[in-house]
Amino acid sequence: MTSSERSIPTLDDVAKAAGVSTATVSRCLNSPDRVVERTRTRVMAAVEELGYTPNFGARVMAAKRTFTIGAIIPTMENAIFARGLQAFQEELHARGYTLLVSSSAYQPKVEEEQIRALIARGADGLLLIGYDRDASVYEYLERQQVPALIAWAFSETHKRPAIGFDNRASMRMLAENVIAHGHRKIGVISALTKGNDRAAQRLLGIKDALTQAQLDADALPIIETPYEIENGGTALAQLMNENPDLTAVMCGNDVLGVGALLRAKQMGINVPSALSITGFDDIELARIVSPQLTTVHVPHRQMGQQAAIELTALVEKTSAGKSVELASHVVLRESLGAPAIPI
Amino acid sequence: MTSSERSIPTLDDVAKAAGVSTATVSRCLNSPDRVVERTRTRVMAAVEELGYTPNFGARVMAAKRTFTIGAIIPTMENAIFARGLQAFQEELHARGYTLLVSSSAYQPKVEEEQIRALIARGADGLLLIGYDRDASVYEYLERQQVPALIAWAFSETHKRPAIGFDNRASMRMLAENVIAHGHRKIGVISALTKGNDRAAQRLLGIKDALTQAQLDADALPIIETPYEIENGGTALAQLMNENPDLTAVMCGNDVLGVGALLRAKQMGINVPSALSITGFDDIELARIVSPQLTTVHVPHRQMGQQAAIELTALVEKTSAGKSVELASHVVLRESLGAPAIPI
Repeated sequence: MTSSERSIPTLDDVAKAAGVSTATVSRCLNSPDRVVERTRTRVMAAVEELGYTPNFGARVMAAKRTFTIGAIIPTMENAIFARGLQAFQEELHARGYTLLVSSSAYQPKVEEEQIRALIARGADGLLLIGYDRDASVYEYLERQQVPALIAWAFSETHKRPAIGFDNRASMRMLAENVIAHGHRKIGVISALTKGNDRAAQRLLGIKDALTQAQLDADALPIIETPYEIENGGTALAQLMNENPDLTAVMCGNDVLGVGALLRAKQMGINVPSALSITGFDDIELARIVSPQLTTVHVPHRQMGQQAAIELTALVEKTSAGKSVELASHVVLRESLGAPAIPI
Repeated sequence: MTSSERSIPTLDDVAKAAGVSTATVSRCLNSPDRVVERTRTRVMAAVEELGYTPNFGARVMAAKRTFTIGAIIPTMENAIFARGLQAFQEELHARGYTLLVSSSAYQPKVEEEQIRALIARGADGLLLIGYDRDASVYEYLERQQVPALIAWAFSETHKRPAIGFDNRASMRMLAENVIAHGHRKIGVISALTKGNDRAAQRLLGIKDALTQAQLDADALPIIETPYEIENGGTALAQLMNENPDLTAVMCGNDVLGVGALLRAKQMGINVPSALSITGFDDIELARIVSPQLTTVHVPHRQMGQQAAIELTALVEKTSAGKSVELASHVVLRESLGAPAIPI
């Protein structure tokens, strides 16, 4: 076998290499005691040579599966998805599955390529982040009969299996909290909402709370920028420049929140006495920055673990596909306070 | 094609599904103008149905490659590898390759399973972190004729192709700096060195500097603990409890460094006036924490980009395998100062 001919080794390949029947290979793998030593040695040498590990091979033969799960996340940077993914992988590993991860850099076209590549590489099932993608992608997945589970989002209006949380309601809770602290002049630094339903839903959550409090949601100053610490800083400077009377800036996630907070400090704006800043996700950054960031806690590990349980159930056809909404909660930390009383 | 029969679709599969010869499929993909409309439509429908994307298929046919690169990193948490991997992926994508990533949780057995899984899934080449693994793994890679490139490490004593930096010399530079600040009572919080040559080399670098300065390297207090922020904190408390006269604690990476720093603050130990703390990696955490962490800057993006260039060259046989040592440098920030003068 040369590298130019590599593909997933089949039972046939092993039989051919060992010069025995496929039944003999199967017997070597499943009931080695029933095969004479010399044959067994030859077969196992072929198994090893071809990288057809007995375990893997035997299980694939029995189950017609590859025991590989693919996950496509928008980014590997900034650890937004890292903790959930780690829990996802641990639970998959405990169930005998290998996880292959791909990152789309928030580009729908790249995600689509990666879905095709993972299916071509034999993925039994896919984990996808959020609902927002072209209908043709879902049609393709259905044609390929590869189960896909949505994570990091949950909405009752979507029928697809999802393990996630309600981004809109979660951010609304936080916004209600900001308003309850006395803030009326609020600005927003959001991720790009196009193609990102989590970001779009979080923005709607802030508007829900403003409307409920009889504040003008249409007048809300919003800057959209990709999730990067530096971008959070640049957006904060622009937002404060254009709206110097803001007393609170709500950010679409902790990465933007930390960037905004560090820039505010650099600009000599005291947080929270002159300006409150909030995030979303409750990743480690939020606790490390000083003052610590008020945010929404996302159940990363629980989500990753439950997603692994549900996706393998879909693959093994022990579940017909269900959706689970996990609870999130507001984490009040030092970066949110009451607005200063105008002198 | 049902999910139980899924595998990488071949030219034959497309030809069979469309009811034409493989030559006709090939012509549709490479010179569509030379095929009548009706046939072309049928073939392209089969191509689409089977997930045999024309681009991918045509290129695999021409090159006998899958254009998939696998990377196995020790962890997806804490963003230690995130920035380098993102650059690796961007450069691969520009060259038409898809990246699949797997995480071994720092477990050699898991890494070995993942190497086999990625090769079984058709990876053209692999990126591996550090040199330290069983000889049988390297033998397996050679038998499979799959090129592997080492990253995050560089050593002239190893012949394998590597794009990295000298962990030992880099940490030695930082330790020399700590000693030059006047520190004589130094402690270390290291990652587990077993199976992790980067961690082992960094520890040796500290000892090199101590020996050079005629300090007793054998008496160096060391705690080994897995890379986790919490662990850095726990280790700091233990280290200070057992060695209250320490004036500097050098940590094996920024994650441990940030954990140690936060715990020192909680314990009422002023950094740096009562205790200096250093890290390694220069990930974002190091700049976000207050006081900011003195560390070693690792050229994450440059390493990821150059690794993609070299690994694709190995796959395409335009390189016979070379190693490149990238420069690292010490980043002096607030967490390192002179030791307090005893009163």
